[in-house]
Amino acid sequence: MPNPDPTLRDQFLSVSTATLTTALFKRNLRNMCLYGVRPLDPATARMAGPAFTLRYIPAREDLDDLSVFADPRHPQRHAVETIPPGAVMVIDSRGDDHAASAGGILVRRMMVRGAAGIVTDGGLRDSHEIAAMAIPAFCRAPSAPTNLIRHHAVDIDVPIGCGGVAVFPGDWVVGDAEGVVVVPREMAAEVAAEAVAMTAFESWVETEVARGRSIVGLYPPNDATRAEFERFVSEHGGG
Amino acid sequence: MPNPDPTLRDQFLSVSTATLTTALFKRNLRNMCLYGVRPLDPATARMAGPAFTLRYIPAREDLDDLSVFADPRHPQRHAVETIPPGAVMVIDSRGDDHAASAGGILVRRMMVRGAAGIVTDGGLRDSHEIAAMAIPAFCRAPSAPTNLIRHHAVDIDVPIGCGGVAVFPGDWVVGDAEGVVVVPREMAAEVAAEAVAMTAFESWVETEVARGRSIVGLYPPNDATRAEFERFVSEHGGG
Amino acid sequence: MPNPDPTLRDQFLSVSTATLTTALFKRNLRNMCLYGVRPLDPATARMAGPAFTLRYIPAREDLDDLSVFADPRHPQRHAVETIPPGAVMVIDSRGDDHAASAGGILVRRMMVRGAAGIVTDGGLRDSHEIAAMAIPAFCRAPSAPTNLIRHHAVDIDVPIGCGGVAVFPGDWVVGDAEGVVVVPREMAAEVAAEAVAMTAFESWVETEVARGRSIVGLYPPNDATRAEFERFVSEHGGG
Amino acid sequence: MPNPDPTLRDQFLSVSTATLTTALFKRNLRNMCLYGVRPLDPATARMAGPAFTLRYIPAREDLDDLSVFADPRHPQRHAVETIPPGAVMVIDSRGDDHAASAGGILVRRMMVRGAAGIVTDGGLRDSHEIAAMAIPAFCRAPSAPTNLIRHHAVDIDVPIGCGGVAVFPGDWVVGDAEGVVVVPREMAAEVAAEAVAMTAFESWVETEVARGRSIVGLYPPNDATRAEFERFVSEHGGG
Amino acid sequence: MPNPDPTLRDQFLSVSTATLTTALFKRNLRNMCLYGVRPLDPATARMAGPAFTLRYIPAREDLDDLSVFADPRHPQRHAVETIPPGAVMVIDSRGDDHAASAGGILVRRMMVRGAAGIVTDGGLRDSHEIAAMAIPAFCRAPSAPTNLIRHHAVDIDVPIGCGGVAVFPGDWVVGDAEGVVVVPREMAAEVAAEAVAMTAFESWVETEVARGRSIVGLYPPNDATRAEFERFVSEHGGG
Amino acid sequence: MPNPDPTLRDQFLSVSTATLTTALFKRNLRNMCLYGVRPLDPATARMAGPAFTLRYIPAREDLDDLSVFADPRHPQRHAVETIPPGAVMVIDSRGDDHAASAGGILVRRMMVRGAAGIVTDGGLRDSHEIAAMAIPAFCRAPSAPTNLIRHHAVDIDVPIGCGGVAVFPGDWVVGDAEGVVVVPREMAAEVAAEAVAMTAFESWVETEVARGRSIVGLYPPNDATRAEFERFVSEHGGG
Repeated sequence: MPNPDPTLRDQFLSVSTATLTTALFKRNLRNMCLYGVRPLDPATARMAGPAFTLRYIPAREDLDDLSVFADPRHPQRHAVETIPPGAVMVIDSRGDDHAASAGGILVRRMMVRGAAGIVTDGGLRDSHEIAAMAIPAFCRAPSAPTNLIRHHAVDIDVPIGCGGVAVFPGDWVVGDAEGVVVVPREMAAEVAAEAVAMTAFESWVETEVARGRSIVGLYPPNDATRAEFERFVSEHGGG
Repeated sequence: MPNPDPTLRDQFLSVSTATLTTALFKRNLRNMCLYGVRPLDPATARMAGPAFTLRYIPAREDLDDLSVFADPRHPQRHAVETIPPGAVMVIDSRGDDHAASAGGILVRRMMVRGAAGIVTDGGLRDSHEIAAMAIPAFCRAPSAPTNLIRHHAVDIDVPIGCGGVAVFPGDWVVGDAEGVVVVPREMAAEVAAEAVAMTAFESWVETEVARGRSIVGLYPPNDATRAEFERFVSEHGGG
Repeated sequence: MPNPDPTLRDQFLSVSTATLTTALFKRNLRNMCLYGVRPLDPATARMAGPAFTLRYIPAREDLDDLSVFADPRHPQRHAVETIPPGAVMVIDSRGDDHAASAGGILVRRMMVRGAAGIVTDGGLRDSHEIAAMAIPAFCRAPSAPTNLIRHHAVDIDVPIGCGGVAVFPGDWVVGDAEGVVVVPREMAAEVAAEAVAMTAFESWVETEVARGRSIVGLYPPNDATRAEFERFVSEHGGG
Repeated sequence: MPNPDPTLRDQFLSVSTATLTTALFKRNLRNMCLYGVRPLDPATARMAGPAFTLRYIPAREDLDDLSVFADPRHPQRHAVETIPPGAVMVIDSRGDDHAASAGGILVRRMMVRGAAGIVTDGGLRDSHEIAAMAIPAFCRAPSAPTNLIRHHAVDIDVPIGCGGVAVFPGDWVVGDAEGVVVVPREMAAEVAAEAVAMTAFESWVETEVARGRSIVGLYPPNDATRAEFERFVSEHGGG
Repeated sequence: MPNPDPTLRDQFLSVSTATLTTALFKRNLRNMCLYGVRPLDPATARMAGPAFTLRYIPAREDLDDLSVFADPRHPQRHAVETIPPGAVMVIDSRGDDHAASAGGILVRRMMVRGAAGIVTDGGLRDSHEIAAMAIPAFCRAPSAPTNLIRHHAVDIDVPIGCGGVAVFPGDWVVGDAEGVVVVPREMAAEVAAEAVAMTAFESWVETEVARGRSIVGLYPPNDATRAEFERFVSEHGGG
Repeated sequence: MPNPDPTLRDQFLSVSTATLTTALFKRNLRNMCLYGVRPLDPATARMAGPAFTLRYIPAREDLDDLSVFADPRHPQRHAVETIPPGAVMVIDSRGDDHAASAGGILVRRMMVRGAAGIVTDGGLRDSHEIAAMAIPAFCRAPSAPTNLIRHHAVDIDVPIGCGGVAVFPGDWVVGDAEGVVVVPREMAAEVAAEAVAMTAFESWVETEVARGRSIVGLYPPNDATRAEFERFVSEHGGG
């Protein structure tokens, strides 16, 4: 996996997950926002990068004791040491937050290694410490119990489900204070460009509404409003 | 709908939702607090106003595409442009927070138009921005996906359910950091008055407890305590 | 119940709930962390003390009206006035947060009486006020409705379930920003000591990882790492 | 509402809800099957008719006592006495089966009046008796508690949600042992015709598979299989 | 506990749980029907007897291994051997059906000892065998896993919650194909008598409705209908 | 995968899932019974065979249209045509029963090909027809909607989760009227043998209990009972 395209990354970092869901909805994609997955710290949740995936199945008491982590090939440990810079670790935890998908030490290691973020539909432990790190982290809930109580890591970099959404390795994963949206890699460039344009328009609309203007004819815009916005852009430089 | 009674509004703004549930419980109303509905910003969640309602049913893919919003008679858009000043927009989203009931632009428009607040048992998108606006907003969860993915707006100003509670247009809707309580319009004045009196008493109790006094005979009060509180009120001017 | 052992208390206050679940997992205890129970204020959630329990069953309309609280023998009121200093009040609310397990006045009274904290798998009312008190408080969710709408108090100081975990009177109850863990009293001393040692090691690991070191061979440690940490401890004095 | 078209009715009665969901999926309608709604008696669950709707909101203790049923204009009672012959009563119970949406006497009255069936996403009481009546009945679960404990009837013949699906008055409502599917009235004729054709083909496929034929090239059919089926139809007269 | 009153028992066996909820609702008791608890065999589910209770809390791995059952004082085993003839065993399983509350051998032993039935809001194992026994059995779901995986038995004959309902020892527990209703012992006689009378009236209504009569003025009855029913009773001998 | 061992198969077919969970619990395996997965027809649910797995992730509208099934390499279709005789198809549907994991034609094809059963933690469509086939089928619920509405098939014969349980290819999957239990392949022989022995003993206990014998000393057996049972076996030939 090469380093993610910096232009695309910057575009995704400049738009909201809300705007992305609308751009995807126009393409009949209605299920790209991870349900129930929230940032540990909404204030520092802006995140964008291609997905690097890790798959868990339910733990089995005879297979999953603490000794397994001594093996560097253990998928969870291997994933943490091999995730490419700029990628987002996305973990399929089957929506189970009775135990942590990862904890502070592993997240710190990923941060040091240059990962763009971590996303799980399970729990995160040491969540208070992770929230203070310089890496966006998203989960269903803080969850103290150790990973092996619920999870058995099996696969790296395979298609997974997370938060009820299909995630293929390389899909763009974008996060903000509201949550996480997946953009299929095949349409990442066009969706990013459209979302940037939508954001410019919506910013202008926000200003107009704040000034007391009605949304009728403004949002969505009629032809007159569209022309007005084009004039505004040509005069002020857009977004 | 005339402007809401300012005295009533001030009374409701001076009491907590917790106190209101007790006043309603005395009247055998046990189910007036919206379940699972929380403020986006607990610090600025004090809200009171009569209910103005909007009803959603599940979306249908062939009916609910983005073009519907171009029609100013679309119930969601119409509601935003016609909610009376001082009223609280209450949206029946069937408890479904897989998509937003509304977003930043519409909430800002309602704020500018003088609405007292917005309440939904679904999601709100642009939630981080809404949390910073000067209008209390309550929902089940932040939710990025665009409204039409889940919701089809059908009705304005009809009786609805929200958070498991019956809401009739004109009922008083009161919010604080803890959540939202509905007070039937027929008993709004008497409930508000009683809640104000209860609040005065409970404030005094808080002070006594903080000083180390036992709750026995104090909370609830026996006759001696009642007399003591009456002396306190006559000396200090009450709540 | 004598005052809780201050050494044990300090040890538990110096470790995280995450570390405790690992120490318990080594003893095949996989279900000691209360599910879905969170601190009202994560910033002041450090708590440790022996459990003092209160058991609720569902309310019955003819038994549970406001007059019951006038009786000082009512189990809820009696519990608040008899909880020993240093103990943690743990309430079995059957996971039902449709009403409050307790409110601000009772929590303040427990604080004044020296209780170490309050834990319920139901709701807390006046939650904004309780969050600001000098007593850690944990619940499923803030919940305005008055206690009697859902709960009938029956027992004090009996074994209960809370958050899906067995809690026996006298078990150590430890809380932090992430949640609440129960440590059976019979193994409290050995678990506390082990958790303190684990914490010292993990702090050192955090520092090493922050410096860029791989987790391979470090976490979990191989023999060389173990020796290195022992040298570190002998030079710097450990955790 | 005129009597439902008997041809359409017979077509819908001859196909399965499973086949209908596929015909609707071809039209990008993915959410037309009521979730969690089951027949009381799978053996006699074949049902088809246009929707006649009834809307409930949550009950309020002061409004919903047994005296309300004495008023013939009460929406539940009025609905039972006015549902047209051949129509299916569909009740929006907000997915709440803590109480009954209707009971044996009302269902029997609808049966006598010629209703084609009853559907609720709440409960049915006297369910054992209803299961034995000559009218298909679908609900979330049998539920003994009387209606007014949870439901306040407000509207008749308005668009509703039921089982998470939009139901407009006049939409076709089709049931079988598996559940209930809604077909929008605008496309009822074409969907019915297509489902009949699909059923003929799938019956033939079932026979072929039972004889040991592989599904490869058969299901879905390639060109050769399509031609083979056409020969079969021309020889045997089709579905 | 003396043998249950045979007249009361026969009265309760002659009425439905649906009718009982209405009789209780008239007394403002709205929460007496166990939610989510169903008979293993609806055809033989008629049951009535006073409650004998057993309380479980969550299991703990170090306390709950198979050896505990060797102790005849183990509360589960003790309960099975001491439940009085005619009583109904009601088990508080906290709504957890991930494991069985009891299995075939224990239920058979209770049957032989004369128990009137068994009710749990958890699971039953060997459910297919139990369904065929001459003792009504109600649970949330069949559940194969052995009891100790989830449950630790602590108490006998204390007030409990079951299916979200308060159950006090000695309350009457009545079951039929639809579920289980609890009648407080203090009002058992009057509720039973009223339910018998209501059943007589509703039987007559059923007959009238089957003949084609409208429910208007019939159900609920107006004065003329009441007089008509009284004539019917005086002529035919009533219910 | 060779044909499954016929002795092992017969042993597993002769014991209940309840007994197997106890044998597994003795080995500290507490989570081997699929939660919420039930037979379509309890009367013909006896099933045993090694697991052949199929993994689904959430569907994506642009990838999952009906044309995908035309490709014989589509994992769902490929799995149906390659499952070995005697194996049980186990599908990871992420617990999502909003759509079918498979339908009548595919199940019939597997039956013809000699599969021992089908298990999913999602839905089955054409469930009424499947229930009548000579192949045991287990699911969360009947579900009419077509597979592609919710599921995207990705993998065959990999470790999966199903009903909250880890399933590795080749693990034994045993079903009966109560549900489905997984036995790890490594311990299949010893667990089967132990379960057969336990079944013999429990049958004898059932007979004794039916004769009126107390469970004290019998279940679990004390030394005298153990000796008595051994005499019984030596006289009558055991289980």
